[in-house]
Amino acid sequence: MRTLSIRRPDDFHVHLRNGEMLGRVAEHTARHFARALVMPNTDPPIRTWQEASQYRRAIEQLIDGSGFQPLMTYKIEPTTTANDVAKLAQSRTVIAGKLYPDGVTTGSENGVRDFEALFPVFETMEHYQLVLCLHGEHPDAFCLDREVAFLPVLAQIALTFPKLRIVLEHVTTEKALVAVEALPDTVAATITVHHLSLTLDDVIGGLLRPHHFCKPVAKYPSDRAALVRAVLSGNPRYFLGTDSAPHDQHKKECAAGCAGVYTAPVAMSLLAELFAQHGALDRLEPFVAEFGARFYGLPLNQETLELVERPMTVPATYAGIIPFRANETIAWSVA
Amino acid sequence: MRTLSIRRPDDFHVHLRNGEMLGRVAEHTARHFARALVMPNTDPPIRTWQEASQYRRAIEQLIDGSGFQPLMTYKIEPTTTANDVAKLAQSRTVIAGKLYPDGVTTGSENGVRDFEALFPVFETMEHYQLVLCLHGEHPDAFCLDREVAFLPVLAQIALTFPKLRIVLEHVTTEKALVAVEALPDTVAATITVHHLSLTLDDVIGGLLRPHHFCKPVAKYPSDRAALVRAVLSGNPRYFLGTDSAPHDQHKKECAAGCAGVYTAPVAMSLLAELFAQHGALDRLEPFVAEFGARFYGLPLNQETLELVERPMTVPATYAGIIPFRANETIAWSVA
Repeated sequence: MRTLSIRRPDDFHVHLRNGEMLGRVAEHTARHFARALVMPNTDPPIRTWQEASQYRRAIEQLIDGSGFQPLMTYKIEPTTTANDVAKLAQSRTVIAGKLYPDGVTTGSENGVRDFEALFPVFETMEHYQLVLCLHGEHPDAFCLDREVAFLPVLAQIALTFPKLRIVLEHVTTEKALVAVEALPDTVAATITVHHLSLTLDDVIGGLLRPHHFCKPVAKYPSDRAALVRAVLSGNPRYFLGTDSAPHDQHKKECAAGCAGVYTAPVAMSLLAELFAQHGALDRLEPFVAEFGARFYGLPLNQETLELVERPMTVPATYAGIIPFRANETIAWSVA
Repeated sequence: MRTLSIRRPDDFHVHLRNGEMLGRVAEHTARHFARALVMPNTDPPIRTWQEASQYRRAIEQLIDGSGFQPLMTYKIEPTTTANDVAKLAQSRTVIAGKLYPDGVTTGSENGVRDFEALFPVFETMEHYQLVLCLHGEHPDAFCLDREVAFLPVLAQIALTFPKLRIVLEHVTTEKALVAVEALPDTVAATITVHHLSLTLDDVIGGLLRPHHFCKPVAKYPSDRAALVRAVLSGNPRYFLGTDSAPHDQHKKECAAGCAGVYTAPVAMSLLAELFAQHGALDRLEPFVAEFGARFYGLPLNQETLELVERPMTVPATYAGIIPFRANETIAWSVA
């Protein structure tokens, strides 16, 4: 029975929600991760440093004593100004701003359509060394083409603001990986656990699987293979962002199901299983605990997480939220 | 307010199910259609002339007096023999056999993987002038590629059995249309109402829409445009097969949703609306009431159906089954 002790991981993309849902999910992220970049597309969204600060306190109260540190973000909307960003930066409450193109996912109402109109915002973020996190899907494209249609926008922003650090979130296509690698190393990408596992066949190829439905939607087998190669490559521009996204069961299993896969409780087990399958357990720690921290300019975590090659059966539900791989067995567990 | 009187239409592909579900849905098809080709993938499936005969009686009892005539089929399975087909043909109970590749849709368990092994069956069907109906998806391909991957199988069967009439059912791709037109005119294709309306964006592009989920899944906008061009073209090799496929609401809105769109009650309204939008109301009657009958060698219906440009609001449900376009308004009604 193999065991693996790694530096405690960071999750550079997580949805903790707010209100009572926050109370149900925060512990699952805090249990395995030292830090997590908390997305601001709550209802209502996080737009100001006061809101970010209040949200952080709400999280900290729930996970008091766990040592978990939430990393805060704000939502960039069409009405966001450079002055708003300056205030956010000066407060030192947030480390990144998140841009959602209009209508592409949960909580992307009032999203962005005119990216150039936000160049003053990006310039201010560059000045204050805030990271720009992009949901990289173009709202005008066909569902499967949205990520690739967004790549010219990514390139334009990256080349216009050469010191702005940019994260293309939850990449799903081989073409996006090619684009990231062709751009300067101010551009990185997060990769989720579920996109390393799923293809569109797992969503619509057999019966319809709402718990495998997310945005961007999982793509072709060749795309998944490219993502697996990317995380195994040891390229420091790829790091973990789970995009763990809880929805109540009835919001998934209905006539109009929400996008999002809830991976927080199983992410580290699944990653250990995947890296072990590829004989690459030595690459796991950098992917989950070094590359992201270095990109964000954060100290590496000193605590550890113990992983063990012992099967875990995933619960059918976590308090009304169906997790990824519910009722299935994963070969590795968190000790 | 325009009106249109057409020869009563035929639906050359419908799922009426059996048991109590049959009792809920048969009337919706019988109300608008003179005849319908009833699919044999019931549970249990229709394999023999006795089963087909019994199934026909069950349908006829429900729609007694409506003048509706069910056209019966049998399911071709890997174990089906030429002798089975001869008995079916000699009984004159059925007019077509339906082949489901393994696992590609509802009721395709024990489906076919080895198509050549069934050549004796096809030869016997050719001899007895039974029509071969194909669910044209290759089980080994990625979900979006299954129809195109099946086209070589279609071509092989069509060229090996030059007198066998073959229907490629519910085509969804431009490439399938090109293939049908390139093959001899023993090959025709049915087109559904929902594939003239949906693309994959309507399934997974926004929220997840299980009531738009079907097999084959709706494809790209360019594919839908090609299907619309095909039905407006007046090519007699394209005719209506709705593939109307009822599932109880809870079998669609769940963690593993069934494929199928329930269009029977709204099909004729939607087609009238579509053809009117394209200024092609004169092409509607041939598509729904002539081309299919001629291909199958059936007399044209003498009764009429009256369509009127009067809005209808689609009910939210038909006895627990959510119809296509539930709660929406369609510009045309059946008088």
